[in-house]
Amino acid sequence: MDANKDKGDQGMQNPGGQMDRPAGFHFSESMLPKAVKRRVHALKRLQVQCANIEAKFYEEIHELERKYAALYQPLLDKRRDIVTGTVEPTDEECEWHSDREDEEQLAAEVKEKAAIEDAKKEEAMPEEDPKGIPEFWLTIFKSVDMLSDMLQEHDEPILKHLKDIQVRFSEPGQPMSFTLEFHFEPNGYFNNAVLTKVYKMKSEPDASEPFSFEGPEIIDCEGCQIDWHKGKDVTVKTIKKKQKHKGRGTVRTVTKQVPNDSFFNFFNPIKASPGVEMDEESEFTLATDFEIGHFFRERIIPRAVLYFTGEALEDDESFEEEELEEGDEEEQDEEGDDDDDDDEGDLDPKA
Amino acid sequence: MDANKDKGDQGMQNPGGQMDRPAGFHFSESMLPKAVKRRVHALKRLQVQCANIEAKFYEEIHELERKYAALYQPLLDKRRDIVTGTVEPTDEECEWHSDREDEEQLAAEVKEKAAIEDAKKEEAMPEEDPKGIPEFWLTIFKSVDMLSDMLQEHDEPILKHLKDIQVRFSEPGQPMSFTLEFHFEPNGYFNNAVLTKVYKMKSEPDASEPFSFEGPEIIDCEGCQIDWHKGKDVTVKTIKKKQKHKGRGTVRTVTKQVPNDSFFNFFNPIKASPGVEMDEESEFTLATDFEIGHFFRERIIPRAVLYFTGEALEDDESFEEEELEEGDEEEQDEEGDDDDDDDEGDLDPKA
Repeated sequence: MDANKDKGDQGMQNPGGQMDRPAGFHFSESMLPKAVKRRVHALKRLQVQCANIEAKFYEEIHELERKYAALYQPLLDKRRDIVTGTVEPTDEECEWHSDREDEEQLAAEVKEKAAIEDAKKEEAMPEEDPKGIPEFWLTIFKSVDMLSDMLQEHDEPILKHLKDIQVRFSEPGQPMSFTLEFHFEPNGYFNNAVLTKVYKMKSEPDASEPFSFEGPEIIDCEGCQIDWHKGKDVTVKTIKKKQKHKGRGTVRTVTKQVPNDSFFNFFNPIKASPGVEMDEESEFTLATDFEIGHFFRERIIPRAVLYFTGEALEDDESFEEEELEEGDEEEQDEEGDDDDDDDEGDLDPKA
Repeated sequence: MDANKDKGDQGMQNPGGQMDRPAGFHFSESMLPKAVKRRVHALKRLQVQCANIEAKFYEEIHELERKYAALYQPLLDKRRDIVTGTVEPTDEECEWHSDREDEEQLAAEVKEKAAIEDAKKEEAMPEEDPKGIPEFWLTIFKSVDMLSDMLQEHDEPILKHLKDIQVRFSEPGQPMSFTLEFHFEPNGYFNNAVLTKVYKMKSEPDASEPFSFEGPEIIDCEGCQIDWHKGKDVTVKTIKKKQKHKGRGTVRTVTKQVPNDSFFNFFNPIKASPGVEMDEESEFTLATDFEIGHFFRERIIPRAVLYFTGEALEDDESFEEEELEEGDEEEQDEEGDDDDDDDEGDLDPKA
């Protein structure tokens, strides 16, 4: 299910970002003798052939993802059933010994004391037992920056009805794409049981730029029509405006509907019209949308519980810290390199 | 051949880096009612099962890479033969119309004039025609920061004899690894025809930290013994030191061999001893080594010609610029969002 993420050792991806032509080293293809330049062109042609083979490799990866999506599905269905309260997991299914919070925050004796108090509390009042895991997806939306940026207060009561988010891959032989499905329980806001967003991908090298091919790329997306109940559409708002008649000086109030910030605008993305160039703002909005779609597919859907508990967020944070530390050490390392020549500590006083 | 890099839309990888718990939103698993916490634990157990399935997915990716490595090999062999001058490509194999430098630097008429002058020059003196593509790999070493950082002046004449760099994947059923092979033509420095560096990988989730699994990871590496000709080992240097006898006050000069900076130290990496904790500097040195190994495998070997011409470096640079621009646009976007309410431009003067 993870075809678009780094397939390997995390923290080593895109090391290319570190590269620049070092100052002082200048090389240009045009400086080469003609016969050599000719051979370099032959290598470039071979490189194009490699890119075409690579495109087939990515198609096979996509197939592999389809195959594995089917293997994950029973586990993801089980997750949905536990989240919605349709299924109550058995004691065995809930065993979880390395509860980090307990380990970190409570020493053994404190734990015991707490257990006694818990027991008292339980006696005093019937235990709170809501259905399933309430606000599971809403909590994730609130926790993850990329999603909370889109989230408005008026979206929250609606997202409490979100039961599941799933990803579906395109069938073999079809143009490569994936569909995000947002499954809702019946609610007072719209009639749709599922809201969808399709991301279309391109997985072959561009004829004009074969060397820039780096694997499948999202090139377009499509939302869906939300069948809002009357007056419940949070993606528009009604504003009142006072209008003064220039000639008569009379003032009247008119109402008009204007677009409103909402997560649900996610299902009505900007469309790229073929042949029409987009302005920069639209381009950025669309790029962000692609990033969010990619993030749902790669991170949120496969590991939702870790975003719910915050464990996935902690990983990201600790990863950032690690990077900073490495930078510090690099400086130390460089200093150390020059020590060899003036190391007087090796002098043998007995000589 | 690209298992460790982003399998998908470049520029969207690791969007997780953007995430932080937003200020003001605090959630803790321990705040949950007992029954809900229990269900969350059930989800965590499902998540561990997902990680185990994911490990199998990565094994299949590795198989797919082996399969594709065989498909690339004839093209890479051809590359080597052209680089070394063993094979002269045909005119058809060298056709390359979109020579960017020509297009950019020369207008059509200038081009024509240059062609006439070229022809004159060719008449005047026999055309320079070295064998193959001289200093192909050395040029790449000089162009790529990560490699030029390791490169010393005394390494350069040796690397002129580098014929090819290849990657070999571990056989099915064997522990996952890849081997970098540096093929040299006979030279005056060492007897080895091939220098090797093996990178061992781990591709299953850690039992103690199953959620941190992100795919195969380099965990260890092994170099090779270089059989240097006498006095040619650039990884050591002989230094002279004056030693003063404390009692007698006499001074004598002694020579000793100390480690010397060189790319060829790449074949004698720091060894992680099991059970012994590494100091920070060694840990950093090893992490850098893993990164370089990964970079050879993922970028340099598959697209060497693009690092030779600099095209791969330009891509990396323009990618960085793009990121900066996006940041600027984000600010614009946010400003634009608040325009709806105080937009007086919509007032109809005719009302």
